[in-house]
Amino acid sequence: MRPRIVIVGAGFGGMAAVRALKGAAADITLVDQTNHHLFQPLLYQVATAALSPADIATASRVLTRGQPEVRVLMAEAVGVDPKEKLLRLADGDPLPFDHLVLATGAAYSFFGHDEWAEHAQVLKSLDDALAIRERLLFAFEKAERTDDPQEVRRLLTFVVVGGGPTGVEMAGTIAELALTTLARDFRRIDPKSARILLCEAGQHVLGAFPADLPAYATEALRSLGVEVRLGQAVSLVDSAGIVLGEERIDAANVLWCAGTQARPAARWLAADAARNGAVRVRPDCSVPGHPDIFAIGDVSSFEAGDGRPLPGLAPVAKQQGKYVGKLLAARIAGRAAPPPFRYRDMGTMAVIGRSRAIADFGRFQMRGFLAWLAWSLVHLMLLVDFRSRVMVYTNWSWAWFTYGRGARLLTGKGRKDSARKDG
Amino acid sequence: MRPRIVIVGAGFGGMAAVRALKGAAADITLVDQTNHHLFQPLLYQVATAALSPADIATASRVLTRGQPEVRVLMAEAVGVDPKEKLLRLADGDPLPFDHLVLATGAAYSFFGHDEWAEHAQVLKSLDDALAIRERLLFAFEKAERTDDPQEVRRLLTFVVVGGGPTGVEMAGTIAELALTTLARDFRRIDPKSARILLCEAGQHVLGAFPADLPAYATEALRSLGVEVRLGQAVSLVDSAGIVLGEERIDAANVLWCAGTQARPAARWLAADAARNGAVRVRPDCSVPGHPDIFAIGDVSSFEAGDGRPLPGLAPVAKQQGKYVGKLLAARIAGRAAPPPFRYRDMGTMAVIGRSRAIADFGRFQMRGFLAWLAWSLVHLMLLVDFRSRVMVYTNWSWAWFTYGRGARLLTGKGRKDSARKDG
Repeated sequence: MRPRIVIVGAGFGGMAAVRALKGAAADITLVDQTNHHLFQPLLYQVATAALSPADIATASRVLTRGQPEVRVLMAEAVGVDPKEKLLRLADGDPLPFDHLVLATGAAYSFFGHDEWAEHAQVLKSLDDALAIRERLLFAFEKAERTDDPQEVRRLLTFVVVGGGPTGVEMAGTIAELALTTLARDFRRIDPKSARILLCEAGQHVLGAFPADLPAYATEALRSLGVEVRLGQAVSLVDSAGIVLGEERIDAANVLWCAGTQARPAARWLAADAARNGAVRVRPDCSVPGHPDIFAIGDVSSFEAGDGRPLPGLAPVAKQQGKYVGKLLAARIAGRAAPPPFRYRDMGTMAVIGRSRAIADFGRFQMRGFLAWLAWSLVHLMLLVDFRSRVMVYTNWSWAWFTYGRGARLLTGKGRKDSARKDG
Repeated sequence: MRPRIVIVGAGFGGMAAVRALKGAAADITLVDQTNHHLFQPLLYQVATAALSPADIATASRVLTRGQPEVRVLMAEAVGVDPKEKLLRLADGDPLPFDHLVLATGAAYSFFGHDEWAEHAQVLKSLDDALAIRERLLFAFEKAERTDDPQEVRRLLTFVVVGGGPTGVEMAGTIAELALTTLARDFRRIDPKSARILLCEAGQHVLGAFPADLPAYATEALRSLGVEVRLGQAVSLVDSAGIVLGEERIDAANVLWCAGTQARPAARWLAADAARNGAVRVRPDCSVPGHPDIFAIGDVSSFEAGDGRPLPGLAPVAKQQGKYVGKLLAARIAGRAAPPPFRYRDMGTMAVIGRSRAIADFGRFQMRGFLAWLAWSLVHLMLLVDFRSRVMVYTNWSWAWFTYGRGARLLTGKGRKDSARKDG
């Protein structure tokens, strides 16, 4: 019987593992809660109405068409039985495996205040992005209909919590949405009067970047009209807004981009976990004590040579996925195992608004428009790679119908949802 | 004081009225439940995962940017007080008007069986289209995971009720989705085995078309693999499926494209209504007894010279909107009223799948590939007209990121919704 490989998660890590297994003499099952692979780095553009969901997501079945040995299963994994070698699903029979790759990623963490989740919207899935889009756009619509100036102020106050790449992207883009896209579209309110706060408990936004890049990013955000509030933690989120340090700030829209927590794979395996819940893995990405179970990407904690865990970035997940795929292919073919995984850092980038970015390539740094150009080109290339496979197969393309942009859509149902949330 | 014109509905009729009032010395308020104008004729392509919502919808505020005298209000109209000249809103103060244009359209009617609405999905809004997309795609995913062959059969049986243009478009496109797009993407089920039924109580599909076009359409549908069932009415819709005549048919997905009912404007005004609830209007599209209140498009019933009401088509709504806009502009400027409204029939079309259509231009008819080409060109032109205005303004277009197609997206939330509906 051909060995059974089960890969959980169709993100960058899981999909890279699937691809690296192309041609392997194994039965591969890819399990994911959704039916698509999501190009997460551009998710914030869906949340801010620049892109449509379909622009950054593709059906997993389409991406695996060239691999008949891969079966795609839309299901939620809820546990692992490492002794019986079974993956437990929320619904239906458990899935037997010989080799298991856990690539289930991370979620946002409210630092023990799960009750804040009701009032603060996270950005992780397409649904999150659409919920944010509805809330942002509806806040302006509602403000236009409101007479009470204090309520208008509250509706047009947007708080982004967390000064990492996602928080910076969101705050910058919301500022531009208010200042340019919506600027001339309302009669009673002035969208330019919108107040956008970015709250970061540390001393810098984008603190993972070296040298003066964080300071540059702060300045760039401020020039876009974003109030950057550093060094104070959000101590409360409720239906009225937030408390930042001692100060209460009324805000109808709070976006949560702070603190990630790995999905519960470590708990499933009773494995040693890092502080954020990620499974501490061995140099070959396997889980200690379980040589047939691997954890990659955000759900894993991989200590590099310097003793520091690798960051939760797409390239890490992709390289680990590719590595584990090749390792399994070698194992199945009876070839020697590859040397331990080594992360090749190709540089990191963060974008601030539509024409500025910062980039760290180790030996040198970039910032400003040139960095933004580099960011655009890199993401364009990654997207091309990802979508070109689709292009070949979509033989009834209506491409000529689509030249416009601007996914500024509020549907009836969404509006009601937002209305409820906005109180 | 400038006269106040209130236009209810941002569809083809309402938007045409707004445009025709460009430059008029009036304060215009456009009221709509959503924030966008929808290109309804291509809505079925969103429902069948070919287009994204943003491809066929544009924010009303964007479309009215060139008209500073127009205020856009996202609100639900719930009544009219013709004496006090007030439009009542679901939420907030009533809106005073000097002239009122009702362009609120029509909804689907379940022939007195409103309880069927729970099991049969209509296609009228973007939310409807996304709900259908979720249900269609999820049916295949669920079937792939199901062992019981009878349940697989039920999941892959799609019933479209109503043989008008929308029903024909949906049935044809679902057939093609199963036969081509999805054909090679599943391992256990064969999407080609999907059963697609189109149920029409009359003797023909597309019965409004002349000569042998309906018979051609039936044949074209059958050649796509659609079971066309004529001459029998659906007598029950429940969670298991439908009863057609005496026959019970198990189906997880029932799409309702039959029988329209005008929105309740006639009731608001205690006005004379046609059988489908539409307000019978005078030759200038005004409501009898209310010279300052107009009803256009699907919410109105306009008797042409031959005593038959005009059909519920986009061109009728557009021409009536333009007519009423010009009439009001003339009235405000103190010019003579235009002659009574006359509908200019430019022909009607219906599309069957991706390469066949029928078209009736009065003096001559077309069918087959040439008719489909004509359909494509006409819709392309209409879409260009509609979107070109947007293009000018979307100055931070990410157009280069979007070349793929295939909005095959199932999000977590949607999946759960569908799961619930699918039982």
